[in-house]
Amino acid sequence: MMLKPISYKNDKIIILDQTKIPEDEIYIEVDTIEVLYEAIKMLKIRGAPLLGIAAAYGIRLSSTINLNKNIDDYKNCLLNDITILKSSRPTAVNLFNVLNKAEKSINSYNDKFRIHESLVSLAVKTHEEDREMCDKIADNGVNLIKNNAKILTHCNTGVLATGGIGTALGIIYRSFWKGKKPDVYVGETRPLLQGARLTAFELTNEGINVHIIPDSARAYIMMEKKIDIVITGADRIAMNGDTANKIGTFDTAINARYFNIPFYIAAPTSTFDKNASDMNDIPIEQRNPEELYKVGYQGLTKTKADFINPAFDITPNKLINGIITEKGIILPPYEKNIPDFI
Amino acid sequence: MMLKPISYKNDKIIILDQTKIPEDEIYIEVDTIEVLYEAIKMLKIRGAPLLGIAAAYGIRLSSTINLNKNIDDYKNCLLNDITILKSSRPTAVNLFNVLNKAEKSINSYNDKFRIHESLVSLAVKTHEEDREMCDKIADNGVNLIKNNAKILTHCNTGVLATGGIGTALGIIYRSFWKGKKPDVYVGETRPLLQGARLTAFELTNEGINVHIIPDSARAYIMMEKKIDIVITGADRIAMNGDTANKIGTFDTAINARYFNIPFYIAAPTSTFDKNASDMNDIPIEQRNPEELYKVGYQGLTKTKADFINPAFDITPNKLINGIITEKGIILPPYEKNIPDFI
Repeated sequence: MMLKPISYKNDKIIILDQTKIPEDEIYIEVDTIEVLYEAIKMLKIRGAPLLGIAAAYGIRLSSTINLNKNIDDYKNCLLNDITILKSSRPTAVNLFNVLNKAEKSINSYNDKFRIHESLVSLAVKTHEEDREMCDKIADNGVNLIKNNAKILTHCNTGVLATGGIGTALGIIYRSFWKGKKPDVYVGETRPLLQGARLTAFELTNEGINVHIIPDSARAYIMMEKKIDIVITGADRIAMNGDTANKIGTFDTAINARYFNIPFYIAAPTSTFDKNASDMNDIPIEQRNPEELYKVGYQGLTKTKADFINPAFDITPNKLINGIITEKGIILPPYEKNIPDFI
Repeated sequence: MMLKPISYKNDKIIILDQTKIPEDEIYIEVDTIEVLYEAIKMLKIRGAPLLGIAAAYGIRLSSTINLNKNIDDYKNCLLNDITILKSSRPTAVNLFNVLNKAEKSINSYNDKFRIHESLVSLAVKTHEEDREMCDKIADNGVNLIKNNAKILTHCNTGVLATGGIGTALGIIYRSFWKGKKPDVYVGETRPLLQGARLTAFELTNEGINVHIIPDSARAYIMMEKKIDIVITGADRIAMNGDTANKIGTFDTAINARYFNIPFYIAAPTSTFDKNASDMNDIPIEQRNPEELYKVGYQGLTKTKADFINPAFDITPNKLINGIITEKGIILPPYEKNIPDFI
């Protein structure tokens, strides 16, 4: 039943074009790094864990394409493709983690087939480990969900964002399969509507109740519907627990604190960035303002105002009740407890 | 230079169709109550004060149309039209205030021409008083704006929402004319984009700097841009200061409090509802969910999720630093101070 957002077949990466959902389920065959770069940039494929998998398949593809070259050219082509892929999206750390591993393999060996083998195994392992991590996160988080829980989430963190059942949505799936009847509220997630398009699509396909709300209606919904818990994913987490995620997560966390609703992050430990001690070390991607008015509002191209289009914001650690990982739930104080977990 | 959102000429109400801005400036001639009802319902004309003026012109128009009938039929037609207009939008109190006054006139006299005269005068006075009120609100609020202030506002509260220069935007206009160089941030205001379309349109036309942000980026913008003050309008204010305004205002107020940014409401005293002691007495309009996916997202009609589309939320009095009215700024404790002002 589950969708397949990415797979690797016959020296091609097959990706589900997420910009077309829920209208169409179209699969794209990716056979060059340039096409993959474009697909990542245009969010045809997205979600921090899925980007890590895509990067791993990408460098495997690059190795296959360049295998006939001499060792120096082969290595240079691979390293060049790594640079291209690293420039696609700046915030999601999974992509960098995978590409750094690939770089290490390339620099460690002087044998094309040894390198190729390690890159194939990196790709297979990255996907498989992500699937397992999703299951473990779901196991570790499911007890936070009570029967008939009203859950608020943001953006998309499910099958369409990971190699498995998802992070925050994985917990929701697991609670549904256990008969807990979750009721899910999700903001549209302007400007690209990952909530209204993707989260609503995949959860309702499974039979879960979903309510789409304007992003601005969160405080209203928390008060009116008595939301029990907020769970979102993460694109990068600093070592003090400051968490970068889709723009609007910070607002959601502030609102949740105001109403005393527990706010959890669900993310694999690979989302932690050992080089980021706090939010100041996390870059925020600014995306093309066209996204704000091209999604149906052509008339706005005439405006004399400018558009600001940050893709992410950072929720400070003090607003986070816990971080649900594949190794268990990390609780505050994060400065002390995060290093013990990862 | 200023736009004319409403006027009355040759027994017709002329309204600027706000659903077409900023693409087109189209004026509509309204010559029946049914057309006016539809224009209000579809937000071709909107903004709490402007709806009061529209209702006043509407009942004046109804009187003109029915003047040839006998006194009983004349009165019945007028009272019927008042009922129709009252059913157009439930939250904005100005509309009800004006229509209650009209009802009183109709019930007070048994002379068509006496009634007609009072309704003409009610319409002229409602518009003129609103223009004056805007000026006074601007006078009373302008000192809250420092030089080069970064101001965040929500929805539209300017020339396109009132009979004059606006409430929250009136204060911004006045500060601009005084050379204070305000820098204005406004959320898109999903789903109908009053911020991205209307506020950006009218302020930039005047030469004021405007930045449009996704509604979800408020916390990010408050932190990154160091917003100095938040000012919004109000659709109805309870006697304890609980304030109904466009969906997202409550979120904005919670965010502002988190960052210790002063949060002000600007509204004429006619916005206070003497029959509402607190938020529980204010009805919240739920609008057609189609608004959420019809604004450019046709594909979403296929979703199996439901849509929740509240038009307003209510900001509790404790989050409001002051209410700027034409009679001065009302400060907490509101329970004590509001009755003294109105």
